[in-house]
Amino acid sequence: MLRIYGDLISGNCQKVKWCADYLTIPYEWVQVDIMQGETRTPEFLALNPAHQVPTVVLDDGRPLAQSNAICLHLAQGSDLIPKDSYARAKMMEWLFWEQYSHETAVAVQRFQVRYLGKAVADLDPALVAKSGAALARLDLGLEDRDWLVGETLTLADLCLLPYTRMAPEGGIDLAAYGNIGPWIERASAALRV
Amino acid sequence: MLRIYGDLISGNCQKVKWCADYLTIPYEWVQVDIMQGETRTPEFLALNPAHQVPTVVLDDGRPLAQSNAICLHLAQGSDLIPKDSYARAKMMEWLFWEQYSHETAVAVQRFQVRYLGKAVADLDPALVAKSGAALARLDLGLEDRDWLVGETLTLADLCLLPYTRMAPEGGIDLAAYGNIGPWIERASAALRV
Repeated sequence: MLRIYGDLISGNCQKVKWCADYLTIPYEWVQVDIMQGETRTPEFLALNPAHQVPTVVLDDGRPLAQSNAICLHLAQGSDLIPKDSYARAKMMEWLFWEQYSHETAVAVQRFQVRYLGKAVADLDPALVAKSGAALARLDLGLEDRDWLVGETLTLADLCLLPYTRMAPEGGIDLAAYGNIGPWIERASAALRV
Repeated sequence: MLRIYGDLISGNCQKVKWCADYLTIPYEWVQVDIMQGETRTPEFLALNPAHQVPTVVLDDGRPLAQSNAICLHLAQGSDLIPKDSYARAKMMEWLFWEQYSHETAVAVQRFQVRYLGKAVADLDPALVAKSGAALARLDLGLEDRDWLVGETLTLADLCLLPYTRMAPEGGIDLAAYGNIGPWIERASAALRV
Protein backbone atom coordinates (compact mmCIF):
# COMPACT_ATOMS: atom_id res chain seq x y z
CA MET A 1 0.00 0.00 0.00
CA LEU A 2 1.11 3.58 -0.66
CA ARG A 3 2.75 5.17 2.38
CA ILE A 4 2.60 8.98 2.71
CA TYR A 5 5.10 10.62 5.08
CA GLY A 6 3.77 14.03 5.97
CA ASP A 7 2.52 16.61 8.40
CA LEU A 8 -0.82 18.28 7.75
CA ILE A 9 0.39 21.65 8.96
CA SER A 10 2.15 21.68 5.56
CA GLY A 11 0.07 22.63 2.54
CA ASN A 12 2.43 20.58 0.39
CA CYS A 13 1.43 17.51 2.42
CA GLN A 14 -2.26 18.40 2.20
CA LYS A 15 -2.00 18.28 -1.60
CA VAL A 16 -0.87 14.67 -1.59
CA LYS A 17 -3.54 13.61 0.92
CA TRP A 18 -6.27 15.40 -1.03
CA CYS A 19 -5.09 13.90 -4.30
CA ALA A 20 -5.05 10.36 -2.92
CA ASP A 21 -8.44 10.86 -1.24
CA TYR A 22 -10.01 12.32 -4.39
CA LEU A 23 -8.71 9.41 -6.46
CA THR A 24 -9.70 6.92 -3.71
CA ILE A 25 -6.16 5.55 -3.59
CA PRO A 26 -5.68 3.66 -0.31
CA TYR A 27 -2.69 4.75 1.78
CA GLU A 28 -1.05 4.59 5.16
CA TRP A 29 -0.33 8.02 6.63
CA VAL A 30 2.95 8.27 8.53
CA GLN A 31 3.07 11.38 10.69
CA VAL A 32 6.40 13.21 10.47
CA ASP A 33 6.63 16.15 12.86
CA ILE A 34 8.42 18.93 10.97
CA MET A 35 8.72 21.18 14.02
CA GLN A 36 10.48 18.36 15.93
CA GLY A 37 13.04 17.81 13.15
CA GLU A 38 11.76 14.37 12.26
CA THR A 39 12.77 14.86 8.59
CA ARG A 40 16.43 14.79 9.71
CA THR A 41 16.52 11.25 11.12
CA PRO A 42 18.72 8.69 9.30
CA GLU A 43 15.61 6.65 8.42
CA PHE A 44 13.91 9.62 6.79
CA LEU A 45 17.04 10.83 4.99
CA ALA A 46 17.36 7.38 3.40
CA LEU A 47 13.97 8.02 1.77
CA ASN A 48 14.60 11.66 0.89
CA PRO A 49 18.07 13.18 1.21
CA ALA A 50 16.47 16.61 0.67
CA HIS A 51 14.70 16.04 4.06
CA GLN A 52 11.39 17.40 2.89
CA VAL A 53 7.82 16.24 3.38
CA PRO A 54 5.75 15.04 1.71
CA THR A 55 7.65 11.96 0.66
CA VAL A 56 5.85 8.80 -0.37
CA VAL A 57 6.84 5.16 -0.68
CA LEU A 58 5.02 3.55 -3.57
CA ASP A 59 3.46 0.07 -3.56
CA ASP A 60 6.72 -1.42 -4.83
CA GLY A 61 8.81 0.18 -2.08
CA ARG A 62 10.36 2.96 -4.17
CA PRO A 63 10.37 6.50 -2.73
CA LEU A 64 9.20 9.68 -4.43
CA ALA A 65 9.37 13.28 -3.21
CA GLN A 66 8.14 16.77 -4.18
CA SER A 67 4.42 17.31 -3.67
CA ASN A 68 3.61 18.24 -7.25
CA ALA A 69 5.64 15.36 -8.68
CA ILE A 70 3.83 12.96 -6.35
CA CYS A 71 0.40 14.31 -7.33
CA LEU A 72 1.29 14.04 -11.03
CA HIS A 73 2.33 10.42 -10.51
CA LEU A 74 -0.76 9.46 -8.50
CA ALA A 75 -3.12 11.25 -10.91
CA GLN A 76 -1.78 9.70 -14.14
CA GLY A 77 -4.68 8.89 -16.42
CA SER A 78 -7.26 10.57 -14.18
CA ASP A 79 -9.46 13.58 -14.88
CA LEU A 80 -7.13 15.72 -12.75
CA ILE A 81 -4.71 15.86 -15.71
CA PRO A 82 -6.04 17.30 -18.98
CA LYS A 83 -5.82 15.08 -22.05
CA ASP A 84 -5.24 18.06 -24.31
CA SER A 85 -1.54 18.79 -24.74
CA TYR A 86 -1.75 22.59 -24.39
CA ALA A 87 -4.07 22.41 -21.39
CA ARG A 88 -1.65 19.96 -19.77
CA ALA A 89 1.22 22.37 -20.46
CA LYS A 90 -0.72 25.25 -18.86
CA MET A 91 -1.41 23.05 -15.85
CA MET A 92 2.34 22.37 -15.59
CA GLU A 93 2.97 26.12 -15.86
CA TRP A 94 0.73 26.69 -12.84
CA LEU A 95 2.41 23.85 -10.89
CA PHE A 96 5.92 25.23 -11.40
CA TRP A 97 4.72 28.77 -10.76
CA GLU A 98 3.13 27.57 -7.51
CA GLN A 99 6.41 26.20 -6.21
CA TYR A 100 8.51 29.12 -7.43
CA SER A 101 6.38 32.22 -6.93
CA HIS A 102 3.43 31.36 -4.68
CA GLU A 103 4.55 28.82 -2.08
CA THR A 104 7.80 30.75 -1.50
CA ALA A 105 5.80 33.83 -0.52
CA VAL A 106 2.30 32.96 0.70
CA ALA A 107 3.37 29.83 2.59
CA VAL A 108 6.47 31.47 4.02
CA GLN A 109 4.44 34.44 5.28
CA ARG A 110 1.92 32.12 6.91
CA PHE A 111 4.73 30.11 8.54
CA GLN A 112 6.35 33.22 9.98
CA VAL A 113 3.10 34.58 11.39
CA ARG A 114 1.46 31.39 12.58
CA TYR A 115 4.40 29.24 13.62
CA LEU A 116 7.16 31.73 14.41
CA GLY A 117 4.73 34.18 16.01
CA LYS A 118 5.85 37.24 14.05
CA ALA A 119 3.57 40.26 13.84
CA VAL A 120 2.51 41.15 10.31
CA ALA A 121 4.02 44.62 10.82
CA ASP A 122 7.41 43.01 11.48
CA LEU A 123 7.49 40.92 8.30
CA ASP A 124 9.98 41.70 5.54
CA PRO A 125 8.10 44.15 3.27
CA ALA A 126 9.57 42.35 0.23
CA LEU A 127 7.94 39.10 1.38
CA VAL A 128 4.57 40.78 1.89
CA ALA A 129 4.83 42.38 -1.56
CA LYS A 130 5.72 39.02 -3.13
CA SER A 131 2.69 37.37 -1.49
CA GLY A 132 0.46 40.14 -2.78
CA ALA A 133 1.85 39.82 -6.30
CA ALA A 134 1.36 36.04 -6.28
CA LEU A 135 -2.25 36.34 -5.15
CA ALA A 136 -2.94 39.08 -7.70
CA ARG A 137 -1.52 36.78 -10.41
CA LEU A 138 -3.72 33.92 -9.23
CA ASP A 139 -6.75 36.22 -9.09
CA LEU A 140 -6.13 37.31 -12.68
CA GLY A 141 -5.86 33.65 -13.74
CA LEU A 142 -9.36 33.10 -12.36
CA GLU A 143 -10.95 36.09 -14.13
CA ASP A 144 -14.13 34.87 -15.84
CA ARG A 145 -13.15 31.28 -15.15
CA ASP A 146 -14.29 28.62 -12.70
CA TRP A 147 -11.01 26.67 -12.85
CA LEU A 148 -7.42 27.57 -13.62
CA VAL A 149 -7.19 25.34 -16.70
CA GLY A 150 -10.03 24.25 -18.97
CA GLU A 151 -13.55 23.68 -17.71
CA THR A 152 -12.92 21.28 -14.84
CA LEU A 153 -10.89 20.84 -11.68
CA THR A 154 -7.26 19.87 -12.40
CA LEU A 155 -4.08 19.49 -10.39
CA ALA A 156 -3.50 23.22 -10.97
CA ASP A 157 -6.46 23.97 -8.69
CA LEU A 158 -5.70 21.16 -6.25
CA CYS A 159 -2.06 22.26 -5.80
CA LEU A 160 -2.79 26.00 -5.53
CA LEU A 161 -5.61 25.52 -3.04
CA PRO A 162 -3.93 24.63 0.28
CA TYR A 163 -1.62 27.60 0.79
CA THR A 164 -4.09 30.02 -0.79
CA ARG A 165 -6.84 28.86 1.55
CA MET A 166 -4.51 29.21 4.56
CA ALA A 167 -3.23 32.65 3.52
CA PRO A 168 -5.33 34.45 6.19
CA GLU A 169 -3.22 32.62 8.82
CA GLY A 170 -0.38 34.80 7.50
CA GLY A 171 -2.38 37.98 8.02
CA ILE A 172 -3.47 38.21 4.37
CA ASP A 173 -6.97 39.50 3.61
CA LEU A 174 -8.21 37.50 0.63
CA ALA A 175 -11.17 39.87 0.15
CA ALA A 176 -8.78 42.02 -1.89
CA TYR A 177 -8.80 39.31 -4.58
CA GLY A 178 -12.37 38.98 -5.77
CA ASN A 179 -12.05 35.79 -7.79
CA ILE A 180 -10.16 33.81 -5.19
CA GLY A 181 -12.84 33.40 -2.54
CA PRO A 182 -15.45 31.78 -4.81
CA TRP A 183 -12.75 29.57 -6.36
CA ILE A 184 -11.66 28.37 -2.89
CA GLU A 185 -15.25 27.41 -2.14
CA ARG A 186 -15.67 25.69 -5.51
CA ALA A 187 -12.40 23.75 -5.33
CA SER A 188 -12.87 22.81 -1.67
CA ALA A 189 -16.34 21.48 -2.45
CA ALA A 190 -15.13 19.51 -5.47
CA LEU A 191 -12.34 17.95 -3.43
CA ARG A 192 -14.51 17.62 -0.31
CA VAL A 193 -11.83 19.25 1.85
CA MET B 1 7.24 29.08 -35.87
CA LEU B 2 7.94 28.85 -32.13
CA ARG B 3 8.94 32.20 -30.63
CA ILE B 4 11.10 32.19 -27.50
CA TYR B 5 11.19 35.37 -25.41
CA GLY B 6 14.29 35.29 -23.27
CA ASP B 7 17.61 36.59 -22.12
CA LEU B 8 20.59 34.25 -22.07
CA ILE B 9 21.96 35.71 -18.85
CA SER B 10 19.11 33.67 -17.32
CA GLY B 11 19.73 29.96 -16.84
CA ASN B 12 15.97 29.41 -17.08
CA CYS B 13 16.11 30.83 -20.60
CA GLN B 14 19.16 28.74 -21.50
CA LYS B 15 17.15 25.60 -20.68
CA VAL B 16 14.52 26.39 -23.29
CA LYS B 17 17.10 27.27 -25.95
CA TRP B 18 19.09 24.13 -25.27
CA CYS B 19 15.96 21.98 -25.32
CA ALA B 20 14.80 23.40 -28.67
CA ASP B 21 18.32 23.11 -30.13
CA TYR B 22 18.73 19.52 -28.94
CA LEU B 23 15.39 18.56 -30.42
CA THR B 24 16.12 20.59 -33.60
CA ILE B 25 12.90 22.55 -33.18
CA PRO B 26 13.12 25.74 -35.26
CA TYR B 27 12.42 28.97 -33.39
CA GLU B 28 12.70 32.72 -33.48
CA TRP B 29 14.57 34.15 -30.48
CA VAL B 30 13.17 37.41 -29.15
CA GLN B 31 15.64 39.15 -26.86
CA VAL B 32 14.03 40.53 -23.69
CA ASP B 33 16.43 42.52 -21.55
CA ILE B 34 15.65 41.62 -17.94
CA MET B 35 17.96 44.27 -16.49
CA GLN B 36 16.13 46.96 -18.50
CA GLY B 37 12.71 45.87 -17.21
CA GLU B 38 11.50 44.67 -20.59
CA THR B 39 9.32 42.00 -18.94
CA ARG B 40 7.11 44.80 -17.55
CA THR B 41 5.91 46.27 -20.84
CA PRO B 42 2.18 45.95 -21.65
CA GLU B 43 3.04 43.77 -24.67
CA PHE B 44 5.01 41.33 -22.57
CA LEU B 45 2.50 41.29 -19.70
CA ALA B 46 -0.19 40.26 -22.20
CA LEU B 47 1.87 37.12 -22.88
CA ASN B 48 2.82 36.45 -19.28
CA PRO B 49 1.19 38.38 -16.42
CA ALA B 50 3.82 36.92 -14.10
CA HIS B 51 6.39 38.98 -16.10
CA GLN B 52 8.98 36.22 -16.21
CA VAL B 53 11.21 34.95 -18.96
CA PRO B 54 11.37 32.55 -20.60
CA THR B 55 7.96 32.77 -22.17
CA VAL B 56 7.21 31.16 -25.51
CA VAL B 57 4.53 31.61 -28.12
CA LEU B 58 3.71 28.30 -29.76
CA ASP B 59 3.11 27.74 -33.47
CA ASP B 60 -0.62 28.36 -33.00
CA GLY B 61 -0.06 31.68 -31.20
CA ARG B 62 -0.78 30.49 -27.70
CA PRO B 63 1.66 31.52 -24.92
CA LEU B 64 3.33 29.29 -22.37
CA ALA B 65 5.57 30.20 -19.44
CA GLN B 66 7.77 28.55 -16.80
CA SER B 67 11.00 27.08 -18.14
CA ASN B 68 10.43 23.53 -16.96
CA ALA B 69 6.83 23.48 -18.22
CA ILE B 70 8.02 24.74 -21.62
CA CYS B 71 10.75 22.09 -21.82
CA LEU B 72 8.26 19.36 -20.87
CA HIS B 73 5.94 20.55 -23.61
CA LEU B 74 8.64 20.78 -26.28
CA ALA B 75 10.16 17.43 -25.34
CA GLN B 76 6.93 15.40 -25.40
CA GLY B 77 7.58 12.01 -26.95
CA SER B 78 11.35 12.56 -27.16
CA ASP B 79 14.16 10.65 -25.42
CA LEU B 80 14.50 13.55 -22.94
CA ILE B 81 11.44 12.21 -21.09
CA PRO B 82 11.64 8.62 -19.79
CA LYS B 83 8.95 6.22 -20.96
CA ASP B 84 8.98 4.37 -17.64
CA SER B 85 6.42 5.81 -15.24
CA TYR B 86 8.63 5.77 -12.13
CA ALA B 87 11.63 7.22 -13.98
CA ARG B 88 9.38 9.98 -15.31
CA ALA B 89 8.16 10.69 -11.77
CA LYS B 90 11.75 10.90 -10.51
CA MET B 91 12.54 13.31 -13.35
CA MET B 92 9.58 15.45 -12.26
CA GLU B 93 10.87 15.29 -8.68
CA TRP B 94 14.20 16.78 -9.85
CA LEU B 95 12.43 19.46 -11.92
CA PHE B 96 10.32 20.70 -9.02
CA TRP B 97 13.28 20.44 -6.64
CA GLU B 98 15.32 22.51 -9.08
CA GLN B 99 12.84 25.37 -9.02
CA TYR B 100 12.21 25.19 -5.28
CA SER B 101 15.55 24.36 -3.69
CA HIS B 102 18.31 24.87 -6.27
CA GLU B 103 17.42 27.84 -8.47
CA THR B 104 16.26 29.84 -5.45
CA ALA B 105 19.73 29.52 -3.90
CA VAL B 106 22.43 28.86 -6.52
CA ALA B 107 20.94 31.22 -9.12
CA VAL B 108 20.16 33.92 -6.58
CA GLN B 109 23.72 33.79 -5.21
CA ARG B 110 25.15 34.07 -8.71
CA PHE B 111 22.85 37.01 -9.48
CA GLN B 112 23.87 38.88 -6.35
CA VAL B 113 27.59 38.40 -6.97
CA ARG B 114 27.74 38.78 -10.73
CA TYR B 115 24.97 41.27 -11.45
CA LEU B 116 24.57 43.20 -8.18
CA GLY B 117 28.32 43.21 -7.52
CA LYS B 118 28.12 41.90 -3.96
CA ALA B 119 31.22 40.39 -2.37
CA VAL B 120 30.81 36.75 -1.35
CA ALA B 121 31.69 37.73 2.22
CA ASP B 122 28.71 40.11 2.27
CA LEU B 123 26.13 37.53 1.17
CA ASP B 124 23.43 36.37 3.56
CA PRO B 125 24.99 33.30 5.27
CA ALA B 126 21.60 31.53 5.02
CA LEU B 127 21.71 31.91 1.24
CA VAL B 128 25.24 30.54 1.03
CA ALA B 129 24.27 27.60 3.23
CA LYS B 130 21.21 26.91 1.09
CA SER B 131 23.34 26.88 -2.08
CA GLY B 132 25.77 24.49 -0.44
CA ALA B 133 22.97 22.17 0.65
CA ALA B 134 21.45 22.18 -2.85
CA LEU B 135 24.76 21.32 -4.49
CA ALA B 136 25.46 18.60 -1.90
CA ARG B 137 22.03 17.12 -2.68
CA LEU B 138 22.74 17.21 -6.41
CA ASP B 139 26.18 15.68 -5.84
CA LEU B 140 24.61 12.82 -3.88
CA GLY B 141 22.10 12.26 -6.68
CA LEU B 142 25.02 11.71 -9.06
CA GLU B 143 26.85 9.22 -6.84
CA ASP B 144 27.81 6.21 -9.00
CA ARG B 145 25.60 7.51 -11.80
CA ASP B 146 26.23 9.23 -15.12
CA TRP B 147 22.79 10.86 -15.26
CA LEU B 148 20.25 11.94 -12.67
CA VAL B 149 17.54 9.54 -13.85
CA GLY B 150 18.04 6.22 -15.63
CA GLU B 151 20.92 5.58 -18.01
CA THR B 152 20.58 8.52 -20.39
CA LEU B 153 20.31 12.29 -20.47
CA THR B 154 16.84 13.53 -19.49
CA LEU B 155 15.24 16.89 -18.77
CA ALA B 156 16.42 16.47 -15.17
CA ASP B 157 20.02 16.90 -16.36
CA LEU B 158 19.17 19.56 -18.93
CA CYS B 159 17.27 21.71 -16.42
CA LEU B 160 19.79 21.35 -13.58
CA LEU B 161 22.76 22.11 -15.80
CA PRO B 162 22.61 25.87 -16.50
CA TYR B 163 22.64 27.30 -12.99
CA THR B 164 24.94 24.56 -11.69
CA ARG B 165 27.46 25.27 -14.43
CA MET B 166 27.31 29.01 -13.70
CA ALA B 167 27.61 28.53 -9.91
CA PRO B 168 31.28 29.67 -9.90
CA GLU B 169 30.04 33.11 -11.04
CA GLY B 170 28.45 33.27 -7.58
CA GLY B 171 31.73 32.51 -5.87
CA ILE B 172 30.98 28.81 -5.41
CA ASP B 173 33.83 26.32 -5.76
CA LEU B 174 32.37 23.24 -7.43
CA ALA B 175 35.50 21.21 -6.65
CA ALA B 176 33.90 20.52 -3.27
CA TYR B 177 31.30 18.37 -5.05
CA GLY B 178 33.21 15.55 -6.73
CA ASN B 179 30.44 14.15 -8.93
CA ILE B 180 29.27 17.46 -10.30
CA GLY B 181 32.26 18.45 -12.45
CA PRO B 182 32.30 15.26 -14.56
CA TRP B 183 28.50 15.41 -14.91
CA ILE B 184 28.70 19.02 -16.15
CA GLU B 185 31.20 17.93 -18.81
CA ARG B 186 29.09 14.92 -19.78
CA ALA B 187 25.81 16.82 -19.97
CA SER B 188 27.36 19.81 -21.76
CA ALA B 189 28.87 17.46 -24.35
CA ALA B 190 25.60 15.59 -24.86
CA LEU B 191 23.74 18.87 -25.35
CA ARG B 192 26.60 20.49 -27.27
CA VAL B 193 26.43 23.58 -25.09
